[in-house]
Amino acid sequence: MTIKAYGATAADKPLESMNIERREPGARDVQIDIAFCGVCHSDLHTVRSEWGGTVYPCIPGHEIVGHVSAVGGDVTAFKVGDVVGVGCMVDSCQHCDSCAEGLEQFCENGFTGTYNAATPDAPGYTLGGYSQRIVVDDRFVLKIRHSAEQLAAVAPLLCAGITTYSPLRHWKAGPGKKVGIVGIGGLGHMGVKLAHAMGAHVVAFTTSESKREDARALGADEVINSRNTEEMGAHANSFDFILNTVAASHSLDAFATLLKRDGTMTLVGVPEHPHPSPDVSALIFKRRSIAGSLIGGIAETQEMLDFCAEHGVVADIEMIRMDEIDKAYDRMQRSDVKYRFVIDNATLAA
Amino acid sequence: MTIKAYGATAADKPLESMNIERREPGARDVQIDIAFCGVCHSDLHTVRSEWGGTVYPCIPGHEIVGHVSAVGGDVTAFKVGDVVGVGCMVDSCQHCDSCAEGLEQFCENGFTGTYNAATPDAPGYTLGGYSQRIVVDDRFVLKIRHSAEQLAAVAPLLCAGITTYSPLRHWKAGPGKKVGIVGIGGLGHMGVKLAHAMGAHVVAFTTSESKREDARALGADEVINSRNTEEMGAHANSFDFILNTVAASHSLDAFATLLKRDGTMTLVGVPEHPHPSPDVSALIFKRRSIAGSLIGGIAETQEMLDFCAEHGVVADIEMIRMDEIDKAYDRMQRSDVKYRFVIDNATLAA
Repeated sequence: MTIKAYGATAADKPLESMNIERREPGARDVQIDIAFCGVCHSDLHTVRSEWGGTVYPCIPGHEIVGHVSAVGGDVTAFKVGDVVGVGCMVDSCQHCDSCAEGLEQFCENGFTGTYNAATPDAPGYTLGGYSQRIVVDDRFVLKIRHSAEQLAAVAPLLCAGITTYSPLRHWKAGPGKKVGIVGIGGLGHMGVKLAHAMGAHVVAFTTSESKREDARALGADEVINSRNTEEMGAHANSFDFILNTVAASHSLDAFATLLKRDGTMTLVGVPEHPHPSPDVSALIFKRRSIAGSLIGGIAETQEMLDFCAEHGVVADIEMIRMDEIDKAYDRMQRSDVKYRFVIDNATLAA
Repeated sequence: MTIKAYGATAADKPLESMNIERREPGARDVQIDIAFCGVCHSDLHTVRSEWGGTVYPCIPGHEIVGHVSAVGGDVTAFKVGDVVGVGCMVDSCQHCDSCAEGLEQFCENGFTGTYNAATPDAPGYTLGGYSQRIVVDDRFVLKIRHSAEQLAAVAPLLCAGITTYSPLRHWKAGPGKKVGIVGIGGLGHMGVKLAHAMGAHVVAFTTSESKREDARALGADEVINSRNTEEMGAHANSFDFILNTVAASHSLDAFATLLKRDGTMTLVGVPEHPHPSPDVSALIFKRRSIAGSLIGGIAETQEMLDFCAEHGVVADIEMIRMDEIDKAYDRMQRSDVKYRFVIDNATLAA
């Protein structure tokens, strides 16, 4: 089937309207009419081939919500009309140890990304959510239990939400724990909301004085300007866990030294230029760890969506028309968004 | 009391014989006649003030074994004639959270090192095991259950042993686990022996072809030349835990990429110049961690000594006379020792 989409024909071209093909639903497929698609930094990096390896034309988008419009004969978990989501993955090998444990994001054979990943479908690589419709294996489709009017704000949960939820759960954020969130952007604002909903004492770190009040409104119990060494020093050795969402190169030591003994700081952003090498003695003298985390598995993504529905957690968003995407990218690069752009995919038809 | 010791009067001076004072045993003190003292890299760094802050004259030595020659009136756990050890710590605050948990090495108020640490005793800082006798609070004295003829080879367990035992236990080395030990020196050779005794599958990493056979003799199931990229590549994503004992600046990525998902590499050496900044994506894409670890608490040091006595584990040592110490330092700097020098403290009397 031919549908409308929006993508780039080259790294240095603006995005434009185009037609793409989707496969007809197979026995285990779910066909989704996309209502909204969140705009992630990865979309921009990929469209501009900043990580290399982008195949064109490129249709980004991996924070997808919509309605089921058809299902294959073997699909029992979904039916036409269901409200569903698709995140960063549309397939994985399903037989390695990580897949067997429900950690498809760590598939030993490489998961299939929602865009720019090899697939047997035309044109040979996956095409994302800046489009009217997507067809996805039912094992990678998530149920959404939020109310209908929250749907646009649910979209960012599919990447920004799970990327922060998974490490917060893995490193046991919750009541009695002091949890830091570094960076109050698309990822960080979700980190603050989720850690707060989990019952942790949440401290937001920002370099923008202007975000102080905002961070409190998001659920932070305390806000620290990380450029203020006095404010920082007052929290030395006090954090159980720090989730660092900042991809720009920065001193990790400034935050690592705020961890308690046995504390962990987890990074979820890959810097373009390496961070300054972390001070090994800061790790040794308190048995601290620096770790990384990648989105979450499908089961955990469902758990996150259910947790968010139960706790009324959604993203703070700014809705855009599809043809405003290039302007949105420019603003996103200046961190001029609170806190996630979401595309109204209905504007693709216009 | 005045006793003989061996130390340095300045950073650029060779060590020499000198007399020092020890306090008379108080109610909770154990007076130990030192039989042997292991030679740790920290001794050399401190004597030469390579970390700064050394007070002179400096008497190093924190791998101490000997016999109890007197006890204070409140001491019940030790009696004259007992074979005992003292490691890197002779005191701590005893009231912080870490001390309460038996993790005195992480004392929030700073533990008292066995040498070059502030103390009320003359001359105002602690003096170590390159001496005939030491007087130590009974809570920091360890029981040694090895046989008498093993005593010299037990000395290095007090620092090199616990520094490797503690992280191996903390990160659960044992049957069914693939454990890497990077660097086959004073620390690493103990790491191999201990991980083997714990039942792990042990892989030793060395840059010296000449250490291949030795590492196997120490208990390694496999030995990898870490300069051989093909050998290294064959072990990608396969380690549960890697204990990295190399303090010299080197690429951490070469080893981090050998960790399985959720694997940890723990560093126990502080490099003089920072390691190249570790690749964040190597952490993110497998949820790996890089951590640090510092010696061990007193209870764990006792557990380690008992474990070693039970499993017949001691260090591989080369015995030296006290007046050979400068020559030993020179050889240690060239890694020309298998694997730990131990001073025969009886030679102090000569």
